[in-house]
Amino acid sequence: MGMNSVKGYLQQKENLVNSFLESYLIKPFSPGVLHDAMKYSLLAGGKRIRPILCLTAYEACGGHGEDILPQACAIELIHTYSLIHDDLPAMDNDDLRRGKPTSHIMFGEAMAILAGDALLTDAFRIFSQNNNIPTGRLLSGIHELASAAGVMGMVAGQAQDIISEKLTPDKDTVNFIHSSKTAALIRASAKIGAILSDADTDTITHIAVYGEKIGLAFQVIDDVLDIESSTEELGKPSGSDKKSHKMTYPSVYGTKESKNIAGGLIEDAVRSIKKINGNPDTLVSIAGYLLTRTS
Amino acid sequence: MGMNSVKGYLQQKENLVNSFLESYLIKPFSPGVLHDAMKYSLLAGGKRIRPILCLTAYEACGGHGEDILPQACAIELIHTYSLIHDDLPAMDNDDLRRGKPTSHIMFGEAMAILAGDALLTDAFRIFSQNNNIPTGRLLSGIHELASAAGVMGMVAGQAQDIISEKLTPDKDTVNFIHSSKTAALIRASAKIGAILSDADTDTITHIAVYGEKIGLAFQVIDDVLDIESSTEELGKPSGSDKKSHKMTYPSVYGTKESKNIAGGLIEDAVRSIKKINGNPDTLVSIAGYLLTRTS
Repeated sequence: MGMNSVKGYLQQKENLVNSFLESYLIKPFSPGVLHDAMKYSLLAGGKRIRPILCLTAYEACGGHGEDILPQACAIELIHTYSLIHDDLPAMDNDDLRRGKPTSHIMFGEAMAILAGDALLTDAFRIFSQNNNIPTGRLLSGIHELASAAGVMGMVAGQAQDIISEKLTPDKDTVNFIHSSKTAALIRASAKIGAILSDADTDTITHIAVYGEKIGLAFQVIDDVLDIESSTEELGKPSGSDKKSHKMTYPSVYGTKESKNIAGGLIEDAVRSIKKINGNPDTLVSIAGYLLTRTS
Repeated sequence: MGMNSVKGYLQQKENLVNSFLESYLIKPFSPGVLHDAMKYSLLAGGKRIRPILCLTAYEACGGHGEDILPQACAIELIHTYSLIHDDLPAMDNDDLRRGKPTSHIMFGEAMAILAGDALLTDAFRIFSQNNNIPTGRLLSGIHELASAAGVMGMVAGQAQDIISEKLTPDKDTVNFIHSSKTAALIRASAKIGAILSDADTDTITHIAVYGEKIGLAFQVIDDVLDIESSTEELGKPSGSDKKSHKMTYPSVYGTKESKNIAGGLIEDAVRSIKKINGNPDTLVSIAGYLLTRTS
């Protein structure tokens, strides 16, 4: 797949995800301010890379993506909750996200915490319903999602990220932070697509490794972009990692070596995905595309 | 069942729940401070009324409670997360809970938010695994739990609670707050016991109504105790609802009428639970016991 057709593919899937998310919050509920806060963050844009990977992995194993759209989008609810909570004053204290004021700036801290709690909880409600998919597979998907998002994944990574600020950067710690905080959920996104399609065990493993590698590459590239891109390109202040003394790949390896590491991770991902029983082409193209992103 | 044997029954089930929760957190993970914060709140005591109701409802329908112990205890993880987040400075700003410093006082705000996030997420991981129970029932249980804890239940109730502070108390609002914030999860606790036992639809409904009524009564009694009990008895400052301008049943109905309402709710609960296909005796006794509690 050429670069333009990858872009077209991602745009088409992004539209699919956005239309589900818009319809999800179309019906108002009480209190209205909680609804508004959830909607504000969920529809604030974003690349929707997690649900897209889930849909694409499902299709690589022979399924039709739209059949698992609610499950893929549930992952985006969890990603969105994590951004809201990460931005809180007690955490990273960020005022700007994707060029817009963060949730607590718009709605106050209490409502930002609750909007995050609500999105996290509702992800599991949405995930638990799908008459197209056997119940055992849905249950495995929930187990995978909760494992990746919780104490063995994202939350542990964010906790380590917070307590590592201002510490001397070291390889093990930054690898733990990035593997847990970012790669775990991206890995789960791809793996859940495979689980829901009832792929064989080896294929599920290859897809999980692919997700792990591109997830880590994704975060390393993010670290580099924070240094090399402008505030306009990023939608948030550039150089903010350094300012807040975040432990990043460039802070341990330097910028040039970090780019090499990201390139190597993408190569590993491609090697793994080519081993699946199925059609790896689109996932290969997405991996290559991630290396070229600028925001 | 006489009052003493109810107490003995509750104590026995509480021990069962506590031993599961202790073993759940026996294995350390990184970062240690996140583990410590989760453990601190989870093992801070509490009546374990939600998991006990789940186990008891399951047994009322003919099951053996220990078979669903992980699912019952997952509900306690969700209850515990809600207490940690409710106590945060941006929410109710409480320094004391069950006679001990609250999570953010002990571990700081960031770690308190993350400990809550982790407990909420891990509840669904724990719930998703149980080889004794068919996958379809587990999935229905997850759907029920996420519905009760999220935007159609607990989180909505907490949001309404926060925005109703200092507003003139009215019946509809206080009923929405208590039904959502407290009764929804207690209702779900009993209902999930019935769902996992594969009870018939009518029995599930009667048990859900029972849970709803005792859940609401539980919160009304809580409101009354906040006025009539001492700080020592409560483990938190008495009179705190009035001080923080909370909308409560006594603030709308007065203390005497609130007690009458709680009594009426317990009667409704007992009427409903007597209709089940199964043995309602223990659930009847628990309902009666709730009316007599003093802390």
